Amino acid sequence: MPKYIIVLQNILIMIKFVNKFNIMSTYINDDFLLQSNVARELYHSHAERLPIIDYHCHLSPELIAKDYKFTSITDLWLGGDHYKWRLMRANGVEEKYVSGEGDNWIKFQKWAETVPFSMRNPIYHWTHMELMRVFGIDEILKPETAKKIYDRCNELLSDDDFSTQSLIKKFNVETLCTTDDPVDSLHYHKSLKENSFGVKVLPTWRPDRIIAISDISAFKKYVEVLSSVSNVGISSIDDLLQALQNRHDFFETMGCRLSDHGLTTFYSSDFTMKQLNDIFLSVLSGKQPSENDINVFSSGMLHLLSVMDAKSGWAQQFHVGPIRNNNTIIFKTKGPDAGCDAIDDASMAASGHKFLDGLAKENNLAKTILYNLNPKDSTVLASMAGTFNDGSVPGKMQYGAAWWFLDNEQGIIDQLNTISNQGLLSRFVGMLTDSRSIISYPRHEYFRRILCNLIAQDVVSGHLPQSEMSMISKLVENISYYNAKLYFNF
Amino acid sequence: MPKYIIVLQNILIMIKFVNKFNIMSTYINDDFLLQSNVARELYHSHAERLPIIDYHCHLSPELIAKDYKFTSITDLWLGGDHYKWRLMRANGVEEKYVSGEGDNWIKFQKWAETVPFSMRNPIYHWTHMELMRVFGIDEILKPETAKKIYDRCNELLSDDDFSTQSLIKKFNVETLCTTDDPVDSLHYHKSLKENSFGVKVLPTWRPDRIIAISDISAFKKYVEVLSSVSNVGISSIDDLLQALQNRHDFFETMGCRLSDHGLTTFYSSDFTMKQLNDIFLSVLSGKQPSENDINVFSSGMLHLLSVMDAKSGWAQQFHVGPIRNNNTIIFKTKGPDAGCDAIDDASMAASGHKFLDGLAKENNLAKTILYNLNPKDSTVLASMAGTFNDGSVPGKMQYGAAWWFLDNEQGIIDQLNTISNQGLLSRFVGMLTDSRSIISYPRHEYFRRILCNLIAQDVVSGHLPQSEMSMISKLVENISYYNAKLYFNF
Amino acid sequence: MPKYIIVLQNILIMIKFVNKFNIMSTYINDDFLLQSNVARELYHSHAERLPIIDYHCHLSPELIAKDYKFTSITDLWLGGDHYKWRLMRANGVEEKYVSGEGDNWIKFQKWAETVPFSMRNPIYHWTHMELMRVFGIDEILKPETAKKIYDRCNELLSDDDFSTQSLIKKFNVETLCTTDDPVDSLHYHKSLKENSFGVKVLPTWRPDRIIAISDISAFKKYVEVLSSVSNVGISSIDDLLQALQNRHDFFETMGCRLSDHGLTTFYSSDFTMKQLNDIFLSVLSGKQPSENDINVFSSGMLHLLSVMDAKSGWAQQFHVGPIRNNNTIIFKTKGPDAGCDAIDDASMAASGHKFLDGLAKENNLAKTILYNLNPKDSTVLASMAGTFNDGSVPGKMQYGAAWWFLDNEQGIIDQLNTISNQGLLSRFVGMLTDSRSIISYPRHEYFRRILCNLIAQDVVSGHLPQSEMSMISKLVENISYYNAKLYFNF
Repeated sequence: MPKYIIVLQNILIMIKFVNKFNIMSTYINDDFLLQSNVARELYHSHAERLPIIDYHCHLSPELIAKDYKFTSITDLWLGGDHYKWRLMRANGVEEKYVSGEGDNWIKFQKWAETVPFSMRNPIYHWTHMELMRVFGIDEILKPETAKKIYDRCNELLSDDDFSTQSLIKKFNVETLCTTDDPVDSLHYHKSLKENSFGVKVLPTWRPDRIIAISDISAFKKYVEVLSSVSNVGISSIDDLLQALQNRHDFFETMGCRLSDHGLTTFYSSDFTMKQLNDIFLSVLSGKQPSENDINVFSSGMLHLLSVMDAKSGWAQQFHVGPIRNNNTIIFKTKGPDAGCDAIDDASMAASGHKFLDGLAKENNLAKTILYNLNPKDSTVLASMAGTFNDGSVPGKMQYGAAWWFLDNEQGIIDQLNTISNQGLLSRFVGMLTDSRSIISYPRHEYFRRILCNLIAQDVVSGHLPQSEMSMISKLVENISYYNAKLYFNF
Repeated sequence: MPKYIIVLQNILIMIKFVNKFNIMSTYINDDFLLQSNVARELYHSHAERLPIIDYHCHLSPELIAKDYKFTSITDLWLGGDHYKWRLMRANGVEEKYVSGEGDNWIKFQKWAETVPFSMRNPIYHWTHMELMRVFGIDEILKPETAKKIYDRCNELLSDDDFSTQSLIKKFNVETLCTTDDPVDSLHYHKSLKENSFGVKVLPTWRPDRIIAISDISAFKKYVEVLSSVSNVGISSIDDLLQALQNRHDFFETMGCRLSDHGLTTFYSSDFTMKQLNDIFLSVLSGKQPSENDINVFSSGMLHLLSVMDAKSGWAQQFHVGPIRNNNTIIFKTKGPDAGCDAIDDASMAASGHKFLDGLAKENNLAKTILYNLNPKDSTVLASMAGTFNDGSVPGKMQYGAAWWFLDNEQGIIDQLNTISNQGLLSRFVGMLTDSRSIISYPRHEYFRRILCNLIAQDVVSGHLPQSEMSMISKLVENISYYNAKLYFNF
Repeated sequence: MPKYIIVLQNILIMIKFVNKFNIMSTYINDDFLLQSNVARELYHSHAERLPIIDYHCHLSPELIAKDYKFTSITDLWLGGDHYKWRLMRANGVEEKYVSGEGDNWIKFQKWAETVPFSMRNPIYHWTHMELMRVFGIDEILKPETAKKIYDRCNELLSDDDFSTQSLIKKFNVETLCTTDDPVDSLHYHKSLKENSFGVKVLPTWRPDRIIAISDISAFKKYVEVLSSVSNVGISSIDDLLQALQNRHDFFETMGCRLSDHGLTTFYSSDFTMKQLNDIFLSVLSGKQPSENDINVFSSGMLHLLSVMDAKSGWAQQFHVGPIRNNNTIIFKTKGPDAGCDAIDDASMAASGHKFLDGLAKENNLAKTILYNLNPKDSTVLASMAGTFNDGSVPGKMQYGAAWWFLDNEQGIIDQLNTISNQGLLSRFVGMLTDSRSIISYPRHEYFRRILCNLIAQDVVSGHLPQSEMSMISKLVENISYYNAKLYFNF
């Protein structure tokens, strides 16, 4: 036999050995998603150890302040996670074991039955990253392993290392921003400021309810509460704005540097203060506003709220594109955020530009982050953002991180590619969890791995010059951490 | 010379030899599209040998029942295939050799001239898969090979092994569902039931014409035929529904388990039975309905037809998004389905959710498959589907297989990725041909190869755990065959 | 130690050595973007040496005729390039150093600071390709290298080899088509015809201003100029059309073979000549037209202008989808084309089909190229194009090259894949620069490399048969050069 055949056989044996070894290695291993040496270098030497700035999430400040300990992995995972609820329903699980009052173990079992069917869904990655990073459990969740994992998680959760504050610290979170209503007392934020556990927990100003006048009874009640917490009697639009400004100032004193708006689309009807006042008084008097009045009022309020953000130097966020509560039966029994929201497909280029230009021409355009839910809007919003940079702040107009239905590896890559092609990826302020769950922090790791792998592909394929590795490493570090630090200036 | 150089040279020689061998190997070889060992394993050990359930096609039950033999590859390939017609026109072929009465050999020649220019179009793959799998011809179709291939195909077609039933059996089809009008007698389905050739040929309920009232003369004639075949005198909307229900029941007895609707968009206007009756009577009296009446009537009928499907436990399909018959000259001379349809771009999130919720809140939402033609609707429909799962049936709400203009490798991958990210790929009921041609069955092979290769990429790159190969193999088998079997329950 | 371990170690040493070598090689090297042997073969043996037909650009015929020499790389790069302006603003550069009167060196410095932050934006590739191919500078532009590069470029620009004509010849341009108004005298085109420098510089007919009646004062002035240059008194729509036809004939004599239209969307309202005349006279009399009148007039004029193109056998181009001048402050100070345009998201399937069918049914549909700005329209326009091929000309209906916000590697690949899936890639007329800059010609190289790499992937992965390399090479050559030559017939 010629020598090279022997050599090749030996190489094959080696390859098989290595493959065998791989098969036996852990799933969420050190090099998970990192497919090249450059990717591994970028992640392990640059991204991995940087702190987390989670500038947008839905964590409960109360649970953090009280350093709450979950007693059950079922509560922690299935208590309010509508991502998981959707998958369980899709897998044929009865509602009582999804969002209902079913037994904790049976619910977990149903979830464990669903997980193997969720392969290729981001939940499959998230689940095993959370098991590994939070609980140190290096096993695949499935019916055969369910009981063992259930017991182990519950056992660990009773440990002090698994209190809310401990978990946040474990994940090296430097700052996190909750999502709060202008009328919120920020009681727990205050308490967390006074009794710091080493992590900044800051409020975010989310004034959606003051824009929503179509439900006049809810709106009127909300105005009353606002009047009360702001100590401003409200009988005109000017009073309303004064009350909101008081709260805005209060949020500012509490360290708030961000607003957030959840919108179906941008509101950009023309308005005058007189119109706003008339509509406002009419609604307060109990009269149902017309469609046109609703548009004018929403547009006016959105504009005026944005002006407040600009004056304070905050960054404003717009989350645009959902269609909500589409399943009436579930909405009536479970309320909102029960997994029955979906992706809308209205046009938004014209209204978005008009809205932003309305602010820009008054010099009232704050730092802005635009997030879309429908992938068709990705390039539209990225190009829209690029149109309003004014040189005042690097990366002033941001096309935001992949959101909700797009928050998966493909969506993250698409968002990174969209920014890259339409603007300056290097100035991107990076990832956020947008999560209600205290153990979602591995999503920052997930994002950083995807980022490093993507950038590394460009290096390996010669799209980026290997001679510039120091700039490329800086890019990764900036997106992972430093850009957000600089941009938000908490 | 150092030894490793010699070894490397030997390795290079081996590589060159292997490359040379590859160059000389067949195009549609055993490992076509399978780019890794895992892919080859998944395909050859799991997907390849499973039967086909072709739950949506446009084959003629008459030709199957009569066990028709095509006498010419020209008829078989170019007789009615508007995909090919479009490419021939694009290649500068005169209409008489496209859809016209040109000589069979010259038409085939024109097609053979077009094929080399169709590289990267799915037709290039389909053509060579059909040559290889149907006729055993391992050659590239081009002017130089045209005569030989033409003669060989025509020779084979005269053989009994190439009769319609033989071909269907050759491709291991277990069940196929044709597309049928409610007024169809299902004569040939009956005959195929009584004289079975071992493959179930079932009807699908496609009631598009009873929704289309804008052409009142055609509509009235259709109602008359419906009245006659159902033995129900029709002078009210209730009569109409009774007649349709009779036919629905008849289809059910013939093994029908599926309906299908071809829609530009979802119809979801509010309606009352009184309104429907008034519009119906007005149209029967010869009055042209208004745009609004058309919307109300279409919405009402679509809803009520869906209720019938729900009551019968059928699955309903919605094919949404084409804009049809856009080229007036060709439409006037050749009629519909002549290659002049294209992709529309209306919004459909709001109407789709309203339509489905209208059924869900009555508990009348059948198993549902949503297909889109415009890629912008992919994520929208997938998220819409995910919103109406109710836990009653695993995978109840399906985001359907890549359709028509999207039925190509990229479209198939996009569809698989979209389901994966928005729901449970594992519950997907899989591929269909949607074809008018008896020799399109290699498209199931095409789909399975793409599926196996895609899943394998995830395994090789560590996105899926190699330890779970048994679940992953099951996923491939389920999508290839078992999910459809379970879901449709023929 | 067993022998194969030693061998493997030696292989590893070789691999490291090769990697090390790669790290030290130039960025824009011979094999830039070419990731396989097949890709390198296709590019170097087939695409590389073919001449350029730049059938759509915005170069100044005056500068070409005068063989202008730029004196500063700042003027050349930053004088009017709104792509770069957007990135500089995004990077926090003050407007005076972007579009303003800042010092040339400081402006260049600001640009050099921005470039490292533009990694993954196409500008990063373009910049270094231009440095390498135009100036022979094999260095990365960044603050550390800025002065050296600035001085070297400016030094070279004074050389005769860097005059406009020299640069065009250097890039092996055979024909280039500028973009011209119907009232343009084509003085410089004439001069370039009479004093040829070996490259055809032809005009393109871009009649946007005769469609735009909403600004009645500008429109009236334009009609006066048109009347004057055409020697046709214009007091009716017939006169207007006669004047335009005169100019169209004149452009034809000057070698024009192409029209171009910049549209927000397709105009396809029904119209009569009487209506057009009434609206035209009303506007000439100073009356502001209604929205409906604007639509009817635009639709009528667009149709009639297309008829002229059909009669002359020209190819017509439609660039559809921008939303312009969205930033009022910059528009007021800097005018249009200042980097404040973005991507619109209107629907266009119905209007586009109606418009094209209106021409097709009169047999007045010219060769047509459709370009979209919003990626959501890609498949829509590609399928629309496929609907109107009539067999008269191979590739008559073209889905055009990636444009503006989509003119990046991903956009180019998407466009190539879209044509491939929806029609005949082989008939694609290929790349254009669409550029205002004389040194953008490396974008043809960029395109050809991407094309070769993409096609090669299909060969390497077995998607295309390796036995057909001669056809595949022809495909690459045709798209690079021969298809445009045949299609436009300059």
